[in-house]
Amino acid sequence: MGRVTVRRPVVRVRGGLRNSRPDTMAVEEPLEIRIDGSPLSVTMRTPGDDFDLVAGLLHAEGVIEAAADIVSMRVCADTGESGEPTYNVVDVALAPGIEAPEAARAFVTTSACGVCGTGSIDALRKRVRFDVAADALRLGPEVLSGLPETLREAQRVFDRTGGLHAAGLFEPDGSLLVLREDVGRHNAVDKVVGWALRDDALPLTGRVLMVSGRASFELVQKAVLAGIPALAAVSAPSSLAVDLAAESGLTLIGFLRGDSMNVYTGAERLAG
Amino acid sequence: MGRVTVRRPVVRVRGGLRNSRPDTMAVEEPLEIRIDGSPLSVTMRTPGDDFDLVAGLLHAEGVIEAAADIVSMRVCADTGESGEPTYNVVDVALAPGIEAPEAARAFVTTSACGVCGTGSIDALRKRVRFDVAADALRLGPEVLSGLPETLREAQRVFDRTGGLHAAGLFEPDGSLLVLREDVGRHNAVDKVVGWALRDDALPLTGRVLMVSGRASFELVQKAVLAGIPALAAVSAPSSLAVDLAAESGLTLIGFLRGDSMNVYTGAERLAG
Repeated sequence: MGRVTVRRPVVRVRGGLRNSRPDTMAVEEPLEIRIDGSPLSVTMRTPGDDFDLVAGLLHAEGVIEAAADIVSMRVCADTGESGEPTYNVVDVALAPGIEAPEAARAFVTTSACGVCGTGSIDALRKRVRFDVAADALRLGPEVLSGLPETLREAQRVFDRTGGLHAAGLFEPDGSLLVLREDVGRHNAVDKVVGWALRDDALPLTGRVLMVSGRASFELVQKAVLAGIPALAAVSAPSSLAVDLAAESGLTLIGFLRGDSMNVYTGAERLAG
Repeated sequence: MGRVTVRRPVVRVRGGLRNSRPDTMAVEEPLEIRIDGSPLSVTMRTPGDDFDLVAGLLHAEGVIEAAADIVSMRVCADTGESGEPTYNVVDVALAPGIEAPEAARAFVTTSACGVCGTGSIDALRKRVRFDVAADALRLGPEVLSGLPETLREAQRVFDRTGGLHAAGLFEPDGSLLVLREDVGRHNAVDKVVGWALRDDALPLTGRVLMVSGRASFELVQKAVLAGIPALAAVSAPSSLAVDLAAESGLTLIGFLRGDSMNVYTGAERLAG
């Protein structure tokens, strides 16, 4: 996994002192997804777990629902200017009957409702396959308090570069199932969901997703589509993230820091 | 600007104590952009400065270059479920000869080079109109050190919600020209560039752009396209952000905190 970080020279200024030295930073590279050889989209991402990322992206877009919907994924033998392989193109063969999406579709809302948050939630509702509200998950606050530290400890890269977002999937007892990292926070979550999908583990009933940044509408959407009943974030949620979590029956926790947290929706899942 | 924040109930957990109270959070709502009545794309954003955002997005996509390329922008009279106007649709009339883009175009790289960082930089090079490398800007480290505090002081919302990214455009003496905020960090930068474009102030020669988060390839790209010679970020840059900054002659500063900073490229602009 040498491609997750690189070293580049940097001039460090500390008060009046300056020195030049190499610094470690997170790699960002484009990834092109092709469906049966035809380009679908290009996403900036941190290399690593690319098959998970592709599966997660295709799931979030509603193209696939299970591991069997993908016949194969392969890294194309494309090369960069230097003639070295880039490993930046993944070609996906979809199963018969699974329709390839149009390239780079816009996020389409119902025209009946103009464009508003409610319309966006309505549009999503039609695609949801799992009943997150019915999930019997109960969470101990002391377990939640431990998640950020577990996530940080498991991050091999974050402390060195300060540049990678993390997403971790946890059991209700606080044990970590999987950790994925990326310069893009949506990508980190797509990698987690894609990992589960490829293992035919959807819906992720009874699990908690923890993210290192903020909780946006899109992150709540990805959690709900994967059947995850609880999302915890180190930082703030947005209004539409809270609205969608309330509508879906997802427990949404923000500002999770030590034994302090804000529970925006689904507080009935908190034990004690 | 009441729509930038809303209040929602939250259960606060502090150690063993719990209480329920209203909490302020950043608003996230969809914005649909139409060109001459035809839907182009939908972006999640924090309402406010929407015309700046639309102008900045169209500039970043290479659709427009100057204020005159837009004949008019208007907020459509669409309504949500409650019958209230949503203010979430902006219709743009482009000047004759300015071509409307296809809906939701993918980021296309040169096929000659496979897909690699170099290819992404090459693709951008063809679109760059301003010579950032030639910019005579010189920056005092003590001026740079003051930017984060100025940005924070100017943020009316951040401290209340913890959920908004900020982008500020500064003069070389450290005075703030404009501040824009959004739940999306790219949006905050698009709002700044769009503000300048609508004022026919591109290129932004001799100015510094400061962002509250990380510096990705896309943020460096937006700065270069607007002719901004220096980008400072509170957090880490990615590898491709550094590569593009080096290629373009942009000064890229990361981890700018008090009198401490890392200068990744263009350190020759630092005075003293």
